[in-house]
Amino acid sequence: MEDIKEVFFTPLPDSPYVKPFRFNFTQNGQKKTWDILEVHDSVAIIVFNVTRRVMIFVKQFRPAIYYNCIKPEDRKAEFIDTKKYPASLGIALEMCAGIVDKDKSVDEIAREEVLEECGYNVELKDLHRIISYRSGVGVQGALQTLYYCEVTDDMKTEQGGGVDDEIIEVVEKTIPEIEDMVNSPGPLTSPPACLFALMWFLRNKADKYRK
Amino acid sequence: MEDIKEVFFTPLPDSPYVKPFRFNFTQNGQKKTWDILEVHDSVAIIVFNVTRRVMIFVKQFRPAIYYNCIKPEDRKAEFIDTKKYPASLGIALEMCAGIVDKDKSVDEIAREEVLEECGYNVELKDLHRIISYRSGVGVQGALQTLYYCEVTDDMKTEQGGGVDDEIIEVVEKTIPEIEDMVNSPGPLTSPPACLFALMWFLRNKADKYRK
Repeated sequence: MEDIKEVFFTPLPDSPYVKPFRFNFTQNGQKKTWDILEVHDSVAIIVFNVTRRVMIFVKQFRPAIYYNCIKPEDRKAEFIDTKKYPASLGIALEMCAGIVDKDKSVDEIAREEVLEECGYNVELKDLHRIISYRSGVGVQGALQTLYYCEVTDDMKTEQGGGVDDEIIEVVEKTIPEIEDMVNSPGPLTSPPACLFALMWFLRNKADKYRK
Repeated sequence: MEDIKEVFFTPLPDSPYVKPFRFNFTQNGQKKTWDILEVHDSVAIIVFNVTRRVMIFVKQFRPAIYYNCIKPEDRKAEFIDTKKYPASLGIALEMCAGIVDKDKSVDEIAREEVLEECGYNVELKDLHRIISYRSGVGVQGALQTLYYCEVTDDMKTEQGGGVDDEIIEVVEKTIPEIEDMVNSPGPLTSPPACLFALMWFLRNKADKYRK
Protein backbone atom coordinates (compact mmCIF):
# COMPACT_ATOMS: atom_id res chain seq x y z
CA MET A 1 0.00 0.00 0.00
CA GLU A 2 2.81 2.38 0.85
CA ASP A 3 4.76 1.74 -2.35
CA ILE A 4 3.88 5.11 -3.88
CA LYS A 5 6.04 6.91 -6.46
CA GLU A 6 5.93 9.16 -9.53
CA VAL A 7 3.55 11.59 -7.88
CA PHE A 8 2.69 14.67 -9.97
CA PHE A 9 -0.25 16.99 -10.50
CA THR A 10 -2.07 17.96 -13.70
CA PRO A 11 -5.05 20.20 -14.50
CA LEU A 12 -8.44 18.65 -13.97
CA PRO A 13 -9.82 17.17 -17.19
CA ASP A 14 -13.56 16.44 -17.53
CA SER A 15 -13.90 14.25 -14.45
CA PRO A 16 -16.68 11.84 -13.50
CA TYR A 17 -15.76 12.28 -9.81
CA VAL A 18 -15.13 15.98 -9.29
CA LYS A 19 -17.54 18.38 -10.96
CA PRO A 20 -16.86 21.91 -9.77
CA PHE A 21 -19.10 24.82 -10.67
CA ARG A 22 -20.26 28.19 -9.44
CA PHE A 23 -23.53 28.55 -7.53
CA ASN A 24 -25.10 32.00 -8.10
CA PHE A 25 -27.85 33.38 -5.87
CA THR A 26 -29.41 36.49 -4.39
CA GLN A 27 -29.73 36.52 -0.59
CA ASN A 28 -31.61 39.33 1.17
CA GLY A 29 -31.35 41.31 -2.07
CA GLN A 30 -27.60 40.85 -2.40
CA LYS A 31 -26.05 38.97 -5.32
CA LYS A 32 -23.59 36.29 -4.21
CA THR A 33 -21.64 33.34 -5.54
CA TRP A 34 -20.29 30.20 -3.95
CA ASP A 35 -18.01 27.65 -5.61
CA ILE A 36 -19.02 24.07 -5.02
CA LEU A 37 -18.55 20.54 -6.16
CA GLU A 38 -21.05 17.98 -7.29
CA VAL A 39 -20.32 14.75 -5.45
CA HIS A 40 -22.24 11.52 -4.88
CA ASP A 41 -24.22 10.70 -1.78
CA SER A 42 -22.53 8.01 0.28
CA VAL A 43 -22.86 5.36 2.96
CA ALA A 44 -20.58 4.55 5.90
CA ILE A 45 -20.90 1.46 8.04
CA ILE A 46 -19.75 0.87 11.63
CA VAL A 47 -18.78 -2.82 11.46
CA PHE A 48 -18.23 -4.43 14.87
CA ASN A 49 -17.06 -8.03 15.13
CA VAL A 50 -18.81 -9.46 18.19
CA THR A 51 -16.87 -12.75 18.10
CA ARG A 52 -13.61 -11.02 18.94
CA ARG A 53 -15.06 -7.68 20.10
CA VAL A 54 -13.14 -5.58 17.62
CA MET A 55 -14.10 -2.64 15.43
CA ILE A 56 -13.41 -3.13 11.72
CA PHE A 57 -11.64 -0.24 9.98
CA VAL A 58 -10.40 0.15 6.44
CA LYS A 59 -6.99 1.61 5.72
CA GLN A 60 -6.03 3.07 2.35
CA PHE A 61 -3.84 5.66 0.65
CA ARG A 62 -5.78 8.91 0.24
CA PRO A 63 -4.24 11.32 -2.30
CA ALA A 64 -6.15 14.30 -0.85
CA ILE A 65 -4.63 13.79 2.61
CA TYR A 66 -1.17 13.16 1.19
CA TYR A 67 -1.35 16.33 -0.92
CA ASN A 68 -2.21 18.42 2.12
CA CYS A 69 0.91 17.17 3.92
CA ILE A 70 3.18 18.58 1.18
CA LYS A 71 4.50 22.08 1.78
CA PRO A 72 3.23 24.54 -0.86
CA GLU A 73 6.76 25.19 -2.17
CA ASP A 74 7.35 21.45 -2.67
CA ARG A 75 4.12 20.96 -4.60
CA LYS A 76 5.63 22.68 -7.63
CA ALA A 77 8.25 19.97 -8.26
CA GLU A 78 7.95 17.92 -11.44
CA PHE A 79 7.64 14.85 -9.22
CA ILE A 80 6.96 14.95 -5.49
CA ASP A 81 9.91 13.81 -3.37
CA THR A 82 8.51 10.61 -1.86
CA LYS A 83 11.56 10.23 0.39
CA LYS A 84 10.77 13.56 2.03
CA TYR A 85 7.04 12.83 1.95
CA PRO A 86 6.54 9.09 2.55
CA ALA A 87 3.23 7.56 1.47
CA SER A 88 2.43 6.79 5.10
CA LEU A 89 1.44 10.45 5.52
CA GLY A 90 -1.58 9.78 3.32
CA ILE A 91 -2.71 6.46 4.78
CA ALA A 92 -6.17 7.02 6.26
CA LEU A 93 -8.04 4.98 8.83
CA GLU A 94 -11.78 5.04 8.16
CA MET A 95 -15.05 3.23 8.56
CA CYS A 96 -16.13 1.03 5.66
CA ALA A 97 -17.78 3.40 3.17
CA GLY A 98 -18.80 3.87 -0.44
CA ILE A 99 -20.55 6.20 -2.83
CA VAL A 100 -24.14 5.80 -4.02
CA ASP A 101 -23.45 5.59 -7.75
CA LYS A 102 -25.42 2.48 -8.71
CA ASP A 103 -29.08 1.95 -9.40
CA LYS A 104 -29.52 0.02 -6.16
CA SER A 105 -31.00 0.85 -2.77
CA VAL A 106 -28.78 2.68 -0.32
CA ASP A 107 -29.09 -0.31 2.05
CA GLU A 108 -27.95 -2.69 -0.69
CA ILE A 109 -24.95 -0.50 -1.49
CA ALA A 110 -24.01 -0.53 2.21
CA ARG A 111 -24.28 -4.34 2.22
CA GLU A 112 -22.01 -4.60 -0.83
CA GLU A 113 -19.39 -2.28 0.67
CA VAL A 114 -19.17 -4.40 3.84
CA LEU A 115 -18.53 -7.45 1.65
CA GLU A 116 -16.15 -5.82 -0.84
CA GLU A 117 -14.07 -3.82 1.59
CA CYS A 118 -14.23 -5.91 4.79
CA GLY A 119 -15.09 -9.40 3.49
CA TYR A 120 -18.18 -9.94 5.71
CA ASN A 121 -21.28 -11.29 4.01
CA VAL A 122 -24.12 -9.62 5.91
CA GLU A 123 -27.86 -9.55 5.24
CA LEU A 124 -29.89 -6.38 4.85
CA LYS A 125 -31.54 -7.10 8.23
CA ASP A 126 -28.11 -6.90 9.89
CA LEU A 127 -27.71 -3.26 8.79
CA HIS A 128 -29.23 -0.67 11.13
CA ARG A 129 -29.58 2.90 9.90
CA ILE A 130 -28.25 5.30 12.55
CA ILE A 131 -28.34 8.80 11.14
CA SER A 132 -27.94 10.83 7.96
CA TYR A 133 -26.01 14.10 7.77
CA ARG A 134 -24.34 16.36 5.23
CA SER A 135 -20.79 15.32 4.36
CA GLY A 136 -19.23 18.75 4.47
CA VAL A 137 -21.00 22.09 4.28
CA GLY A 138 -18.49 24.23 2.38
CA VAL A 139 -17.95 22.80 -1.08
CA GLN A 140 -19.71 19.44 -0.74
CA GLY A 141 -23.13 18.90 0.69
CA ALA A 142 -24.00 15.33 -0.25
CA LEU A 143 -25.92 13.12 2.13
CA GLN A 144 -24.08 10.39 4.00
CA THR A 145 -26.07 7.67 5.73
CA LEU A 146 -24.38 5.90 8.64
CA TYR A 147 -25.18 2.28 9.53
CA TYR A 148 -24.30 -0.02 12.39
CA CYS A 149 -23.67 -3.67 11.66
CA GLU A 150 -22.60 -6.47 14.00
CA VAL A 151 -20.71 -9.34 12.39
CA THR A 152 -19.25 -12.65 13.54
CA ASP A 153 -16.11 -14.43 12.39
CA ASP A 154 -18.14 -17.00 10.44
CA MET A 155 -19.69 -14.22 8.33
CA LYS A 156 -16.26 -13.48 6.92
CA THR A 157 -16.51 -15.27 3.59
CA GLU A 158 -14.16 -13.11 1.53
CA GLN A 159 -10.78 -11.52 1.91
CA GLY A 160 -12.07 -7.93 1.61
CA GLY A 161 -9.72 -5.25 0.35
CA GLY A 162 -11.90 -3.64 -2.30
CA VAL A 163 -12.66 -4.35 -5.94
CA ASP A 164 -10.93 -3.46 -9.24
CA ASP A 165 -7.69 -1.64 -8.49
CA GLU A 166 -8.57 -0.61 -4.92
CA ILE A 167 -5.85 -1.35 -2.37
CA ILE A 168 -7.59 -1.51 0.99
CA GLU A 169 -6.39 -3.16 4.17
CA VAL A 170 -8.79 -4.34 6.87
CA VAL A 171 -7.69 -3.26 10.36
CA GLU A 172 -9.19 -4.30 13.70
CA LYS A 173 -9.15 -2.28 16.92
CA THR A 174 -10.31 -3.17 20.42
CA ILE A 175 -12.63 -0.93 22.46
CA PRO A 176 -9.72 0.49 24.55
CA GLU A 177 -7.85 1.24 21.32
CA ILE A 178 -10.90 3.10 19.99
CA GLU A 179 -11.04 5.10 23.21
CA ASP A 180 -7.36 5.99 22.87
CA MET A 181 -8.06 7.18 19.34
CA VAL A 182 -10.90 9.57 20.23
CA ASN A 183 -9.01 10.80 23.30
CA SER A 184 -5.79 11.56 21.40
CA PRO A 185 -5.00 15.09 20.21
CA GLY A 186 -4.08 13.77 16.74
CA PRO A 187 -3.48 14.84 14.09
CA LEU A 188 -5.41 11.78 12.98
CA THR A 189 -5.56 10.68 9.35
CA SER A 190 -9.26 10.01 9.83
CA PRO A 191 -12.28 12.07 8.81
CA PRO A 192 -14.78 13.49 11.32
CA ALA A 193 -17.43 11.01 10.13
CA CYS A 194 -15.20 8.18 11.41
CA LEU A 195 -14.71 9.96 14.75
CA PHE A 196 -18.45 10.52 15.10
CA ALA A 197 -19.07 6.84 14.30
CA LEU A 198 -16.62 5.77 17.03
CA MET A 199 -18.25 8.14 19.53
CA TRP A 200 -21.68 6.79 18.60
CA PHE A 201 -20.45 3.24 19.22
CA LEU A 202 -18.83 4.15 22.55
CA ARG A 203 -22.01 5.91 23.66
CA ASN A 204 -24.54 3.35 22.51
CA LYS A 205 -22.96 -0.08 22.15
CA ALA A 206 -19.55 -0.43 23.78
CA ASP A 207 -20.72 -1.17 27.35
CA LYS A 208 -22.34 -4.40 26.20
CA TYR A 209 -19.02 -5.64 24.81
CA ARG A 210 -16.53 -4.56 27.41
CA LYS A 211 -14.80 -7.49 29.05
CA MET B 1 -31.43 34.45 5.79
CA GLU B 2 -34.04 32.39 3.94
CA ASP B 3 -34.77 35.11 1.38
CA ILE B 4 -32.98 33.31 -1.45
CA LYS B 5 -33.84 33.76 -5.13
CA GLU B 6 -32.37 33.86 -8.64
CA VAL B 7 -30.42 30.66 -8.12
CA PHE B 8 -28.50 29.42 -11.17
CA PHE B 9 -25.29 27.57 -11.93
CA THR B 10 -22.35 28.54 -14.12
CA PRO B 11 -19.01 26.91 -15.00
CA LEU B 12 -16.23 27.38 -12.48
CA PRO B 13 -14.00 30.32 -13.32
CA ASP B 14 -10.53 30.62 -11.79
CA SER B 15 -11.58 30.41 -8.16
CA PRO B 16 -9.64 31.31 -5.02
CA TYR B 17 -11.78 28.84 -3.02
CA VAL B 18 -12.07 25.74 -5.14
CA LYS B 19 -8.93 24.59 -6.95
CA PRO B 20 -9.55 21.20 -8.52
CA PHE B 21 -6.76 19.19 -10.13
CA ARG B 22 -5.69 15.65 -10.91
CA PHE B 23 -3.30 13.76 -8.61
CA ASN B 24 -1.21 11.22 -10.57
CA PHE B 25 0.71 8.43 -8.86
CA THR B 26 2.02 4.90 -9.19
CA GLN B 27 0.97 2.52 -6.41
CA ASN B 28 2.43 -1.00 -6.21
CA GLY B 29 3.63 -0.53 -9.82
CA GLN B 30 0.20 0.50 -11.11
CA LYS B 31 -0.43 3.97 -12.57
CA LYS B 32 -3.44 5.67 -11.00
CA THR B 33 -5.15 9.05 -10.84
CA TRP B 34 -7.38 10.70 -8.24
CA ASP B 35 -9.24 14.00 -8.68
CA ILE B 36 -8.96 16.31 -5.71
CA LEU B 37 -9.44 19.84 -4.52
CA GLU B 38 -7.04 22.20 -2.86
CA VAL B 39 -8.80 23.69 0.17
CA HIS B 40 -7.66 25.60 3.22
CA ASP B 41 -7.05 24.07 6.62
CA SER B 42 -9.70 25.11 9.12
CA VAL B 43 -10.69 25.49 12.76
CA ALA B 44 -13.94 24.61 14.51
CA ILE B 45 -14.83 25.65 18.04
CA ILE B 46 -17.24 24.07 20.51
CA VAL B 47 -18.56 27.18 22.30
CA PHE B 48 -20.49 26.41 25.50
CA ASN B 49 -22.13 29.21 27.48
CA VAL B 50 -21.79 28.21 31.14
CA THR B 51 -23.99 31.08 32.39
CA ARG B 52 -27.08 29.64 30.77
CA ARG B 53 -25.72 26.14 30.07
CA VAL B 54 -26.34 26.28 26.33
CA MET B 55 -24.30 25.21 23.32
CA ILE B 56 -23.66 27.95 20.77
CA PHE B 57 -24.30 26.99 17.15
CA VAL B 58 -24.14 29.02 13.96
CA LYS B 59 -26.85 28.75 11.34
CA GLN B 60 -26.33 29.79 7.73
CA PHE B 61 -27.39 29.10 4.16
CA ARG B 62 -25.04 26.59 2.58
CA PRO B 63 -25.23 26.47 -1.24
CA ALA B 64 -23.60 23.02 -1.36
CA ILE B 65 -26.32 21.48 0.83
CA TYR B 66 -29.10 23.28 -1.02
CA TYR B 67 -27.75 22.08 -4.37
CA ASN B 68 -27.79 18.48 -3.20
CA CYS B 69 -31.48 18.75 -2.29
CA ILE B 70 -32.40 19.61 -5.90
CA LYS B 71 -33.39 16.68 -8.09
CA PRO B 72 -30.96 16.23 -11.01
CA GLU B 73 -33.68 16.97 -13.58
CA ASP B 74 -34.54 20.27 -11.85
CA ARG B 75 -30.91 21.43 -11.76
CA LYS B 76 -31.02 22.10 -15.50
CA ALA B 77 -33.56 24.95 -15.22
CA GLU B 78 -32.39 28.47 -16.09
CA PHE B 79 -33.30 29.47 -12.53
CA ILE B 80 -33.99 27.01 -9.72
CA ASP B 81 -37.62 26.96 -8.57
CA THR B 82 -37.28 28.36 -5.05
CA LYS B 83 -40.95 27.65 -4.33
CA LYS B 84 -40.40 23.95 -4.93
CA TYR B 85 -37.00 24.11 -3.21
CA PRO B 86 -37.22 26.60 -0.32
CA ALA B 87 -33.99 28.02 1.05
CA SER B 88 -34.65 26.31 4.38
CA LEU B 89 -33.41 23.06 2.76
CA GLY B 90 -29.92 24.56 2.70
CA ILE B 91 -29.82 26.11 6.17
CA ALA B 92 -27.10 24.32 8.10
CA LEU B 93 -26.55 24.08 11.84
CA GLU B 94 -22.84 23.99 12.67
CA MET B 95 -20.19 24.71 15.22
CA CYS B 96 -18.45 28.08 14.91
CA ALA B 97 -15.71 27.56 12.29
CA GLY B 98 -13.43 29.26 9.81
CA ILE B 99 -10.65 28.69 7.33
CA VAL B 100 -6.97 29.27 8.02
CA ASP B 101 -6.29 31.81 5.30
CA LYS B 102 -4.52 34.57 7.22
CA ASP B 103 -0.96 34.94 8.37
CA LYS B 104 -1.95 34.38 12.00
CA SER B 105 -1.68 31.46 14.39
CA VAL B 106 -4.38 28.83 14.21
CA ASP B 107 -5.33 29.67 17.83
CA GLU B 108 -5.72 33.35 16.95
CA ILE B 109 -7.92 32.49 13.96
CA ALA B 110 -10.12 30.39 16.26
CA ARG B 111 -10.36 33.32 18.69
CA GLU B 112 -11.40 35.67 15.89
CA GLU B 113 -14.06 33.29 14.61
CA VAL B 114 -15.67 33.03 18.04
CA LEU B 115 -15.88 36.84 18.14
CA GLU B 116 -16.98 37.40 14.55
CA GLU B 117 -19.51 34.60 14.29
CA CYS B 118 -20.78 34.26 17.87
CA GLY B 119 -19.96 37.66 19.42
CA TYR B 120 -17.99 36.34 22.41
CA ASN B 121 -14.68 38.02 23.13
CA VAL B 122 -12.50 35.19 24.46
CA GLU B 123 -8.81 35.07 25.30
CA LEU B 124 -6.39 32.58 23.82
CA LYS B 125 -6.15 30.84 27.21
CA ASP B 126 -9.90 30.10 27.03
CA LEU B 127 -9.40 28.01 23.89
CA HIS B 128 -8.50 24.37 24.48
CA ARG B 129 -7.28 22.28 21.55
CA ILE B 130 -9.12 18.97 21.48
CA ILE B 131 -8.09 17.08 18.37
CA SER B 132 -7.07 17.51 14.73
CA TYR B 133 -8.37 15.32 11.91
CA ARG B 134 -8.71 15.34 8.14
CA SER B 135 -11.82 17.14 6.91
CA GLY B 136 -12.86 14.60 4.31
CA VAL B 137 -10.73 11.88 2.76
CA GLY B 138 -12.09 11.72 -0.79
CA VAL B 139 -11.53 15.02 -2.55
CA GLN B 140 -10.46 17.21 0.38
CA GLY B 141 -7.87 16.31 2.96
CA ALA B 142 -7.20 19.54 4.79
CA LEU B 143 -6.56 19.56 8.51
CA GLN B 144 -9.29 20.76 10.85
CA THR B 145 -8.41 21.58 14.44
CA LEU B 146 -11.24 21.39 16.97
CA TYR B 147 -11.30 23.57 20.09
CA TYR B 148 -13.43 23.71 23.22
CA CYS B 149 -14.22 27.09 24.72
CA GLU B 150 -16.40 27.97 27.71
CA VAL B 151 -17.95 31.45 27.66
CA THR B 152 -20.13 33.51 29.98
CA ASP B 153 -22.86 36.00 29.15
CA ASP B 154 -20.61 38.93 30.07
CA MET B 155 -18.07 37.87 27.43
CA LYS B 156 -20.66 38.57 24.75
CA THR B 157 -19.46 41.98 23.59
CA GLU B 158 -20.60 41.87 19.97
CA GLN B 159 -23.68 40.80 18.06
CA GLY B 160 -21.91 38.05 16.10
CA GLY B 161 -23.29 37.06 12.72
CA GLY B 162 -20.12 37.12 10.68
CA VAL B 163 -18.20 39.80 8.80
CA ASP B 164 -18.50 41.35 5.33
CA ASP B 165 -21.53 39.90 3.57
CA GLU B 166 -21.86 36.80 5.75
CA ILE B 167 -25.38 36.15 7.04
CA ILE B 168 -24.99 34.00 10.13
CA GLU B 169 -27.46 33.48 12.96
CA VAL B 170 -26.35 32.44 16.44
CA VAL B 171 -28.48 29.61 17.84
CA GLU B 172 -28.42 28.16 21.36
CA LYS B 173 -29.36 24.64 22.38
CA THR B 174 -29.64 23.02 25.81
CA ILE B 175 -27.93 19.75 26.69
CA PRO B 176 -31.19 17.73 26.27
CA GLU B 177 -31.66 19.36 22.85
CA ILE B 178 -28.13 18.34 21.86
CA GLU B 179 -28.88 14.80 22.96
CA ASP B 180 -32.05 14.77 20.86
CA MET B 181 -29.99 15.93 17.90
CA VAL B 182 -27.37 13.16 18.06
CA ASN B 183 -30.06 10.55 18.80
CA SER B 184 -32.26 11.54 15.85
CA PRO B 185 -32.11 9.63 12.55
CA GLY B 186 -31.92 12.88 10.59
CA PRO B 187 -31.39 13.76 7.84
CA LEU B 188 -29.59 16.59 9.63
CA THR B 189 -28.29 19.65 7.81
CA SER B 190 -25.12 19.39 9.88
CA PRO B 191 -21.69 18.03 8.98
CA PRO B 192 -20.09 15.06 10.77
CA ALA B 193 -17.54 17.38 12.41
CA CYS B 194 -20.42 19.09 14.25
CA LEU B 195 -21.85 15.73 15.34
CA PHE B 196 -18.43 14.59 16.57
CA ALA B 197 -18.06 17.87 18.48
CA LEU B 198 -21.43 17.34 20.19
CA MET B 199 -20.53 13.76 21.08
CA TRP B 200 -17.19 14.94 22.48
CA PHE B 201 -19.00 17.48 24.65
CA LEU B 202 -21.57 14.94 25.87
CA ARG B 203 -18.81 12.46 26.73
CA ASN B 204 -16.37 14.86 28.37
CA LYS B 205 -18.15 17.95 29.66
CA ALA B 206 -21.93 17.67 29.80
CA ASP B 207 -22.23 15.91 33.18
CA LYS B 208 -20.75 18.92 34.92
CA TYR B 209 -23.48 21.18 33.52
CA ARG B 210 -26.59 19.05 33.78
CA LYS B 211 -29.13 20.54 36.11
